[in-house]
Amino acid sequence: MLARLLDALAGTEVSAHCDLPCGVYDPAQARIEAESVKATVAKYNASDDPAFKARAIAIKEERSDLVKHHLWVLWTDYFKPPHFEKYPQLHGLFNEATKLAGAGGTKGSLDEGVADQLLGKIDEISTIFWETKKPA
Amino acid sequence: MLARLLDALAGTEVSAHCDLPCGVYDPAQARIEAESVKATVAKYNASDDPAFKARAIAIKEERSDLVKHHLWVLWTDYFKPPHFEKYPQLHGLFNEATKLAGAGGTKGSLDEGVADQLLGKIDEISTIFWETKKPA
Amino acid sequence: MLARLLDALAGTEVSAHCDLPCGVYDPAQARIEAESVKATVAKYNASDDPAFKARAIAIKEERSDLVKHHLWVLWTDYFKPPHFEKYPQLHGLFNEATKLAGAGGTKGSLDEGVADQLLGKIDEISTIFWETKKPA
Amino acid sequence: MLARLLDALAGTEVSAHCDLPCGVYDPAQARIEAESVKATVAKYNASDDPAFKARAIAIKEERSDLVKHHLWVLWTDYFKPPHFEKYPQLHGLFNEATKLAGAGGTKGSLDEGVADQLLGKIDEISTIFWETKKPA
Amino acid sequence: MLARLLDALAGTEVSAHCDLPCGVYDPAQARIEAESVKATVAKYNASDDPAFKARAIAIKEERSDLVKHHLWVLWTDYFKPPHFEKYPQLHGLFNEATKLAGAGGTKGSLDEGVADQLLGKIDEISTIFWETKKPA
Amino acid sequence: MLARLLDALAGTEVSAHCDLPCGVYDPAQARIEAESVKATVAKYNASDDPAFKARAIAIKEERSDLVKHHLWVLWTDYFKPPHFEKYPQLHGLFNEATKLAGAGGTKGSLDEGVADQLLGKIDEISTIFWETKKPA
Repeated sequence: MLARLLDALAGTEVSAHCDLPCGVYDPAQARIEAESVKATVAKYNASDDPAFKARAIAIKEERSDLVKHHLWVLWTDYFKPPHFEKYPQLHGLFNEATKLAGAGGTKGSLDEGVADQLLGKIDEISTIFWETKKPA
Repeated sequence: MLARLLDALAGTEVSAHCDLPCGVYDPAQARIEAESVKATVAKYNASDDPAFKARAIAIKEERSDLVKHHLWVLWTDYFKPPHFEKYPQLHGLFNEATKLAGAGGTKGSLDEGVADQLLGKIDEISTIFWETKKPA
Repeated sequence: MLARLLDALAGTEVSAHCDLPCGVYDPAQARIEAESVKATVAKYNASDDPAFKARAIAIKEERSDLVKHHLWVLWTDYFKPPHFEKYPQLHGLFNEATKLAGAGGTKGSLDEGVADQLLGKIDEISTIFWETKKPA
Repeated sequence: MLARLLDALAGTEVSAHCDLPCGVYDPAQARIEAESVKATVAKYNASDDPAFKARAIAIKEERSDLVKHHLWVLWTDYFKPPHFEKYPQLHGLFNEATKLAGAGGTKGSLDEGVADQLLGKIDEISTIFWETKKPA
Repeated sequence: MLARLLDALAGTEVSAHCDLPCGVYDPAQARIEAESVKATVAKYNASDDPAFKARAIAIKEERSDLVKHHLWVLWTDYFKPPHFEKYPQLHGLFNEATKLAGAGGTKGSLDEGVADQLLGKIDEISTIFWETKKPA
Repeated sequence: MLARLLDALAGTEVSAHCDLPCGVYDPAQARIEAESVKATVAKYNASDDPAFKARAIAIKEERSDLVKHHLWVLWTDYFKPPHFEKYPQLHGLFNEATKLAGAGGTKGSLDEGVADQLLGKIDEISTIFWETKKPA
């Protein structure tokens, strides 16, 4: 966390993704969508309006897909063989995190705790990500 | 900037967007894409490979569109009438920023300076955004 | 309205959008989607079938997004600083119109009157648009 | 053409598409994209800038796809068996029109004449469309 | 069917679509999505969970759209005038098949039989497709 | 291969994907897109037309993305912990395959051999996939 804050202060916090590759990657993209999923679940549970609830479910589906997409991009495009060697849990971590944004996770559930589990996995990935960004 | 770091420490830094609305908004989404645009321009200018340059142009087009999209969402979905009253420059700022991600900006240009202007506008928007998040 | 009909007769009515820019813009794109939103609300209200109603809500969400998108493109890509100077209400008009296609508008409502308000705003924008197309 | 203008005056000109179905269809959607394709070809031919030309090709590809999409929707969703019986040429017309927006048409060509052929086919479809909208 | 299996053994079974054109077309793309639609209907009917049912409807809508898209691509991009001459029923077959994936078909229905009808039409198209691939 | 042919004869060959989950998965989706990538590279190399070559590059980018997407879906949505236990190479295989459809693979290369490597990895995945479908 401190590393990230120092990065932020240094103006180099930025982040992730177009497969040119541009070299800009950031787990914040997945986290923002996952926060949205969690907030959507909370609003769904607090509402009595069937039309609102239907909208919430459709939006949760879409945002969960975006979480998966941003994580897949990090896993395939950012992380390289030496990272997987250094962090042997990384493959499993990404597989579990993306599953947590799927049918067995936030897509299929209306429990905020599941969204919290997803956010927890993204935090674990994020910690490793920022470690790999530190000068050796 | 400090406000944002404190938010980050407090775990509330998150951010922006699905129009449920989930209440999660974050100018970082636009900034990440704009950083990608800038990095893509740099790589385009450093390359001699026509196929790579063609890819860079297609990617820059797409990423510039994402910048616009994230800014439009903030302008329409996050900012409310009292904000526009307090910051009378806000409409113009968003209009200029999105134009800077279009044909007269990063889409039509291969000058890193134009991407820097876009990033500058996003920073201005971001400053206002985080000001509106402060407790009154 | 007459101006538009004359344009249509002259075969030059066409219109709107790709940010090359191709120079082809037309508020009809936003209006067609907004008409679809209104018709969808009417069919939702006339139906007793929960599956049909669920489809209607998902479609209304998507079509409302398209309204926003077409309006944003006009606001950023077609209109230029002299237009905003001549029509000082234009920024606010676009902001209100796009909000009317969002959570506080047609996305969040099942009232045809809200779709009518959106159509009214699009008409106002359309009137200004076609005025700017007239020879000076 | 006159029928359409009368419709426009009557405020019922609107038009086409979401497969609820909302009942709103309009060949203008295809025509607007085809006009954009034509304008893009013209700008491509008038330019000496390789980066601009690369953008124009990518945009022409996308806009040609949109032409196809809007035509396909009309062919499948709007037109019904009695229409195909009354206008036996309709299947062929749509097939030729969509081919004219593909590899053998505006996607593969940089000749404005090809875009004009596409626009001509869309006009033929549009004439039939508005005939079917007339009261019997 | 035998022809297809022989093709598969010969490693030339592949298939369909990008309008370069790449020359790779395959009705399996439409069939896979239609199978998904059918399975989704079955799961919808077997469930009592309103949130699951809402997800199923949104997914069925999207997958039905993909069926249409893959069929439209075959109809416009793969099949040529000599095919339509040899198989005069082909236009009607594609029109009926795409309608069966629309509001009057799998989008608007929760009857597995409708999905079966759609799969039947795709099979008919597939049979003709593979016939046209045989050496004369 | 034989297993797949038998499945095909039994009418159960179908396959893969919507995360309802519908239970329909098929590596053919990734393979079809990869074949398209390979054919596009071949056509690019055989052409002298700069506009055609620009189209080919944009299409190759898009189709490579589709390969990645279909593979990611299999990796996250179809394969379960017992599969990863039984096939310890599976994580690495998917990571290499998706990388081969990225900047270091078919996106960044115009060598048909790279597309063949991608197809080879998809075949390895496909073999495992169909093994997991066999009755125990």
